[in-house]
Amino acid sequence: MSKKIESNPKDDGFRMPGEFEPHEGCWMIWPERTDNFRLGAKPAQAAFADVAHALSKYEPVTMLVSKSQYSAAKEVLEPQIRVIEMSTDDAWVRDTGPTFVINDVTGEVRGVDWRFNAWGGLLDGLYFPWDQDDKVARKICDIERKDYYSLEEFVLEGGSIHVDGEGTLIVTETCLLHESRNPQLTKNEIEETLKQYLNVEKIIWLPEGIYLDETNEHVDNIIHYVAPGKVVLAWTDDVNDPQHAMSLKAYEMLTGTTDAKGRSLEVFKLHIPNTVLVTQEESEGVDIVDGTKPRDEGDRQAASYANFYIANGAVILPVFNDEQYDKLAIDTLQRAMPDHRIVPVYAREILLGGGNIHCITQQQPKG
Amino acid sequence: MSKKIESNPKDDGFRMPGEFEPHEGCWMIWPERTDNFRLGAKPAQAAFADVAHALSKYEPVTMLVSKSQYSAAKEVLEPQIRVIEMSTDDAWVRDTGPTFVINDVTGEVRGVDWRFNAWGGLLDGLYFPWDQDDKVARKICDIERKDYYSLEEFVLEGGSIHVDGEGTLIVTETCLLHESRNPQLTKNEIEETLKQYLNVEKIIWLPEGIYLDETNEHVDNIIHYVAPGKVVLAWTDDVNDPQHAMSLKAYEMLTGTTDAKGRSLEVFKLHIPNTVLVTQEESEGVDIVDGTKPRDEGDRQAASYANFYIANGAVILPVFNDEQYDKLAIDTLQRAMPDHRIVPVYAREILLGGGNIHCITQQQPKG
Repeated sequence: MSKKIESNPKDDGFRMPGEFEPHEGCWMIWPERTDNFRLGAKPAQAAFADVAHALSKYEPVTMLVSKSQYSAAKEVLEPQIRVIEMSTDDAWVRDTGPTFVINDVTGEVRGVDWRFNAWGGLLDGLYFPWDQDDKVARKICDIERKDYYSLEEFVLEGGSIHVDGEGTLIVTETCLLHESRNPQLTKNEIEETLKQYLNVEKIIWLPEGIYLDETNEHVDNIIHYVAPGKVVLAWTDDVNDPQHAMSLKAYEMLTGTTDAKGRSLEVFKLHIPNTVLVTQEESEGVDIVDGTKPRDEGDRQAASYANFYIANGAVILPVFNDEQYDKLAIDTLQRAMPDHRIVPVYAREILLGGGNIHCITQQQPKG
Repeated sequence: MSKKIESNPKDDGFRMPGEFEPHEGCWMIWPERTDNFRLGAKPAQAAFADVAHALSKYEPVTMLVSKSQYSAAKEVLEPQIRVIEMSTDDAWVRDTGPTFVINDVTGEVRGVDWRFNAWGGLLDGLYFPWDQDDKVARKICDIERKDYYSLEEFVLEGGSIHVDGEGTLIVTETCLLHESRNPQLTKNEIEETLKQYLNVEKIIWLPEGIYLDETNEHVDNIIHYVAPGKVVLAWTDDVNDPQHAMSLKAYEMLTGTTDAKGRSLEVFKLHIPNTVLVTQEESEGVDIVDGTKPRDEGDRQAASYANFYIANGAVILPVFNDEQYDKLAIDTLQRAMPDHRIVPVYAREILLGGGNIHCITQQQPKG
């Protein structure tokens, strides 16, 4: 029902809307990898369900679930969650799902299906194989009867891009220029592809993302566009933390440039939580599997409050039972987004799998 | 997204529409059981694809495909076919999919999820297990965001019922009263359940169906409601064929009764094809598996032209390269349905799996 379109969104008058624009709904994937999520993924499943239930108060949520987990997921999820069977390799629909683009004249919504290689393929990827993940975008488009653009050769994850919907894209150099993604392309060629497929004019390249982020520092863990001209930035005041220099470079880049409309950016500093380390118990709950990145005791997690999801009228915000910074994050975000309700969800079990709430969600814009 | 409704369609003002009423689309399942379909199910897949492609000219078609066959099916199916991943035990969505009911006042469509036990469970069923098949109805409702009624204890297959949408239901005693379905219920109790869940007032019980039909003689292989008051009946003039007496009993029942509106039924005799026997080559192409009904050389198949599908404005009719009866069937059906285009599809490979075009399709009525 959904067919592959051979042109590109820019030529067809489609653009990727900002996440803060109206949604038709949100997609998620049920976690189950026991070599990534501890204790048979049960604690992660509970956390994903918390996110889905919180989200479903603001927009329709579809949860994609494998054959083997289907009945278990149906049991845990409230009936307002649409559950559809789908095979995947892991649960990060931000990176494996389609990037939806819209045509403001006709109202049509289409998908963009990037190549997915598990954040780095055989060179640098986090697991093998990833063939099921690479089908997720097209399968979602088929379910929704949306036509799609498919880039056979261009590797990209949805978590490595943030747009304002008005011509500006923000990315990180560490990820998009990493040799495990598109080493055959120059930076200019990558820019050209992004301009065509997201329909943007200006690309802001942050040098780096969040310290030790295993996605090669996805942009969605360090910043979030909350409105055109308004960005929140993961930050730390601790000059001895390696994150300080990384966030400072991003801050200087963001405040030293203008967006596609020529506007200066308003930057809200969103202080990161106190360092989150994997405990012995947490590490021991994860299956050791050849080819999958291990989860070792003492590993610092790339914890950041910027990895939230903007739903219709609300923000689903990861929190960490951090007495010092959770409340500050909520207050900062409420200041940046005065018209949105800030809904905190305890997200340590998601973080332990290598991402957070933005990584496990994918908005479908309203047509 | 779709929730279970605890009442029943009759109490809520829903009824099962006739198949000849307008459709939103049609559901199918991709065949792959190598213990039921010969040569790795490849010839059956080609036939199912023929049906899907023919059908898709008249209404949207969704094909449900397992993880392992997903890429293969996508390759064969034309892009107008919506392909959705789903685990099943076999490919008979008439029997495993939901029976849709509509509310003529609100336009709402809901599903009825009967219990499925592979045409007889451990007593008389055709394969084991059938747990994935028994989830198909609810999964389809979830995809379509349709609420559904679920009968935890009542076994029924969609192929064992035919309605006129105006209060009349036709079934066979051999199937519905078989001890492998609902032996705990009396005929009266079965009638009461059907009246509630299909919203019918009159049930016409044919004594039997098609000779050697492994479904315990489903009604959809011997008759088809083509309009209120109009039925086609599989027939043979050969008095030495066991089918003759079976069809005669049905003819006498149909012509000797009236429907829920008090009308006599107009019955069109649709002559069956010449006897179809499994060849040695066909039998040898099927894997022998414990617990699955074997396909032996010389087995007579329950071939019938009545096992067609009524799409929006067309009939997809199984034919068998039978020089004597194919043309007669087309002509008879065109006489019975003068406003529909009759589209013949060669269906021997479907028949060899134990059913035909009506068995592998499930209409979703327009709300």
